[in-house]
Amino acid sequence: MQIFRNRLQALHDARLEMYRGRLVPCHEKPARVDHVLSELGRRPVGVLLDPAPQPDGVLRAALEAVHAPRYLDFLASAWDAWLALDPANAEQDILPSVWPVRGFRSDVLPDNFAARLGLFSFDAGSPIMAGTWAAAQQGAACTHAAALAVAAGSRSAFALTRPPGHHAGPDFFGGYCFVNNAALAAQTLRHAGATRVAVLDVDYHHGNGTQAIFWSRSDVLTVSVHGDPRSEYPFFLGHADEHGEGEGLGANLNLPLPRGSSVAHWFAALEAALQAVQRHGADALVVALGVDTFEGDPISGFRLTGADYLRLGERLARAGLPTVFTFEGGYAVAEVGVNVVNVLEGFVGAG
Amino acid sequence: MQIFRNRLQALHDARLEMYRGRLVPCHEKPARVDHVLSELGRRPVGVLLDPAPQPDGVLRAALEAVHAPRYLDFLASAWDAWLALDPANAEQDILPSVWPVRGFRSDVLPDNFAARLGLFSFDAGSPIMAGTWAAAQQGAACTHAAALAVAAGSRSAFALTRPPGHHAGPDFFGGYCFVNNAALAAQTLRHAGATRVAVLDVDYHHGNGTQAIFWSRSDVLTVSVHGDPRSEYPFFLGHADEHGEGEGLGANLNLPLPRGSSVAHWFAALEAALQAVQRHGADALVVALGVDTFEGDPISGFRLTGADYLRLGERLARAGLPTVFTFEGGYAVAEVGVNVVNVLEGFVGAG
Repeated sequence: MQIFRNRLQALHDARLEMYRGRLVPCHEKPARVDHVLSELGRRPVGVLLDPAPQPDGVLRAALEAVHAPRYLDFLASAWDAWLALDPANAEQDILPSVWPVRGFRSDVLPDNFAARLGLFSFDAGSPIMAGTWAAAQQGAACTHAAALAVAAGSRSAFALTRPPGHHAGPDFFGGYCFVNNAALAAQTLRHAGATRVAVLDVDYHHGNGTQAIFWSRSDVLTVSVHGDPRSEYPFFLGHADEHGEGEGLGANLNLPLPRGSSVAHWFAALEAALQAVQRHGADALVVALGVDTFEGDPISGFRLTGADYLRLGERLARAGLPTVFTFEGGYAVAEVGVNVVNVLEGFVGAG
Repeated sequence: MQIFRNRLQALHDARLEMYRGRLVPCHEKPARVDHVLSELGRRPVGVLLDPAPQPDGVLRAALEAVHAPRYLDFLASAWDAWLALDPANAEQDILPSVWPVRGFRSDVLPDNFAARLGLFSFDAGSPIMAGTWAAAQQGAACTHAAALAVAAGSRSAFALTRPPGHHAGPDFFGGYCFVNNAALAAQTLRHAGATRVAVLDVDYHHGNGTQAIFWSRSDVLTVSVHGDPRSEYPFFLGHADEHGEGEGLGANLNLPLPRGSSVAHWFAALEAALQAVQRHGADALVVALGVDTFEGDPISGFRLTGADYLRLGERLARAGLPTVFTFEGGYAVAEVGVNVVNVLEGFVGAG
């Protein structure tokens, strides 16, 4: 397996997030990737690579296929704009405090920074700091390279990067996510020749951003197994009755499970998800790999154990599709490395 | 003038708000009303009254004419639900941290408290605390009483209450506002017999909640003179091209002015607003009275002086309509009393 690791990931290392109404230390930390790298050192299931440099504009064009240009422009310039308001802002990560709800307008781009920040976000748990864009861009480069490697014939590749991506939508960030790597991988596979692609999201939290990006498209199936949004983040999408619209009708499948669901129920949902992937006739698969389904995860509510991740990897391999993995959630930091590498080892061993 | 004062207003006295990405002490404080009361002690422009008790259900029915029942239920139960999550929450006001943006669903009421909180809000600057609902309810009772007094033949009445109201929409709070008193006054006037009512909002900030409540109705004209939402809060509504829709088309007028506009420009916009009120053929007027148009206001950008508020009151009186005033913004606390009472004195003196 080719593993494209983001050497700039630690540039995104924010301090405090709003979590249930309080400012608390960020759950989504650089150590998450370090633990995966450590475990890869013990169990070399693949080769660690850096993405090859791309000509100017290639990555931007790839990103514009899944994100609105004005959203990308905002992310790229947010930190400088924040400092321009007040040099003392350097000591403070950026969190939104006002946002457009039902009936408010999104068509006019405000001049005000706080307004733009709210326009392009859906939570106050995803701080933007000085290095956020550099980390996210390099993550996109890793993801792009992973997708191109699979398009060129590799059985599988892994974009080992953070911040994660699956909550980032066409023009909004949130859930610790800024650039949707899973969507970028799917789009890159399409662009490189795959006729039909499936994104399978196994993170504990619904892949609301990915769903939103492909909501009206029939060529990319989005499937997600996740905690029921009635009680679990991101709350406002992820219900079973969301099937896509227009040409995309039928190309979205949500499999929400109650918090505390058993491992058996989780794997039964995975089977249903993989059947949908097969029915879609996908030429290639993107797995949005969160391991916050782990029994010890501090902010989630499923019960998978270490051995279950080996089994997950084996089952994904049996789908028989060229596969790109992106790294999403998983916050029981010490175990994240073991659980991620278990999935990869299960996949590679079964291949 | 009959002045219905909210004796419970100080029960809403929150600690910290998110303002431009930082937690800062709340701008919207009980002292705002105290300063108005002090000034009324010096210049008795009206008689201070308490609202008469109403039969069970009367106030709720009045509120349901402008707010969604599920939103009112949330506000009424929010503090208890917050404590039920964790008794230690008593030390902490409630601030939202996740919200539904473009494409997210609002039709499913989540079980999760943080999700409901985000569903019903549009900023993180409006903390809910133990006394918020009691204060807002009593404010609604004062407003209801003021409107009934005017409907019964009084020339004018003033609902002297906080938290303010004009940013609260059909089912969202924000901008320090929970219950829309101006909308409640207009609706109560309609219910009591007025055929056509106008709400004139002279607060520095656009009355986005009032606009949203009456957006599709032709019987209540909403007019607002305010800072341009491209740069000024609440940002996502308040542009000049918002005219209402359906039956309400033509019954909304926004007169945004650039930050720093001169007093002459402000009064010219007021003339245009009052011409629209006249064209509407209103039987009664509600004035959403914010005095954050004051030159010394800490969070606004117009330049009115104390004498300008006398002139404003005189001009409003010349509209010749039965008038209910609601108390909205104004944060230069010491001057709030003088400026509010200047408006009332100007109005009463010209009557």
